[in-house]
Amino acid sequence: MAVERRVASQDRGRETQQRILDGAARVFASAGYGSASLRSISEASGVSLGAINFHFRSKEQIARAVIEEQHARTEGLARDIVAAHSTTFARLIHLSFAASVQMHADPVVQAGVELTLQVGDFLDPSARSADGWDRTVADQIALGLERGELESDLGAAALAETFLACFTGAQIRSRVRDGRRELLPAVRDLWLLILPGVVAPAHRAAARRTVDEALAAHAA
Amino acid sequence: MAVERRVASQDRGRETQQRILDGAARVFASAGYGSASLRSISEASGVSLGAINFHFRSKEQIARAVIEEQHARTEGLARDIVAAHSTTFARLIHLSFAASVQMHADPVVQAGVELTLQVGDFLDPSARSADGWDRTVADQIALGLERGELESDLGAAALAETFLACFTGAQIRSRVRDGRRELLPAVRDLWLLILPGVVAPAHRAAARRTVDEALAAHAA
Repeated sequence: MAVERRVASQDRGRETQQRILDGAARVFASAGYGSASLRSISEASGVSLGAINFHFRSKEQIARAVIEEQHARTEGLARDIVAAHSTTFARLIHLSFAASVQMHADPVVQAGVELTLQVGDFLDPSARSADGWDRTVADQIALGLERGELESDLGAAALAETFLACFTGAQIRSRVRDGRRELLPAVRDLWLLILPGVVAPAHRAAARRTVDEALAAHAA
Repeated sequence: MAVERRVASQDRGRETQQRILDGAARVFASAGYGSASLRSISEASGVSLGAINFHFRSKEQIARAVIEEQHARTEGLARDIVAAHSTTFARLIHLSFAASVQMHADPVVQAGVELTLQVGDFLDPSARSADGWDRTVADQIALGLERGELESDLGAAALAETFLACFTGAQIRSRVRDGRRELLPAVRDLWLLILPGVVAPAHRAAARRTVDEALAAHAA
């Protein structure tokens, strides 16, 4: 009985933490980190200030927890997609569309990404860990170059960083331009631009088809 | 005499406004728009709160003025570079390095770009005007496609938007990663990635050389 009570209480604790993170994510996404207050997080999550203080020491700690939760969700998505496709270019293409859909649909992922971009304001960048998306992209690019599916004037690390930069920019301009409504076509355009610089000639036609398939699949 | 006095007073007014914008830019860049206060802008600019209220109605109006000033500075730079190079790819390459240097060195340009990215928070995006950099890139890309110096699977407008997205992403990841210390090599890497997808085959070797020249010239 004591064990059951403890488990039930742990479950409730986790559920409350989850509600705080969801509420905080919506506040961070709409107000930005600087303007977010514990009071507005309490209102958005429906959790009392006292309960928030019980679970988290500070706004910064909540922001760190949002970023961690975003990493976990992105990592789960990345794992599924790598398992579902065999070529590295198909993995990268599907990953970029799926991550865009996730970012548009999930406030925690959105807030985690935005917070990481504002990271200099409140978090030591050197302590920052690459999230599942960054790491999966780097791994698949290294593997693709090794297998000869990818080809580039850049080394694996520089190519991964540059690819991630392009993708980050597409996300951000899409948010500023139209609240991400046209993000999936923007990701397709990005692929058309970079394809000749990253996919080996023998795989380019297949990669082009995969871009169209992925757009259709993830837009559905 | 009355005219001279008026001119001198106008000059003083412009100088004060300029000091307010410079101070505000540093505050916006370090604290973000949400956390910036008129008091901190007064401290950073060395201009009294009363004088700030005389020149600007609100923090939002100051932010708009910073963005306008950024546009003017970027536009001046873009004009000079278009005049100095004859091919569209050389103009785009030199522009992207020069804009990176300007962003690193000029707090007003930095703050204007950051504020535009946070634009949804305080400024109607539909009212947003493209700055000199956006417009020059779009013009040069359209001209380059027309002349056959550039070649792409995308139309002119989509290519310009996608190019700008990649460049925005390189800026942002570089700021988060190392405070823009390695921005110029990142711009070089970006060019190596996108070159085969945007420069026509006949011009690729010349464009590659131009990337190296531009890196050396703007790093100096």
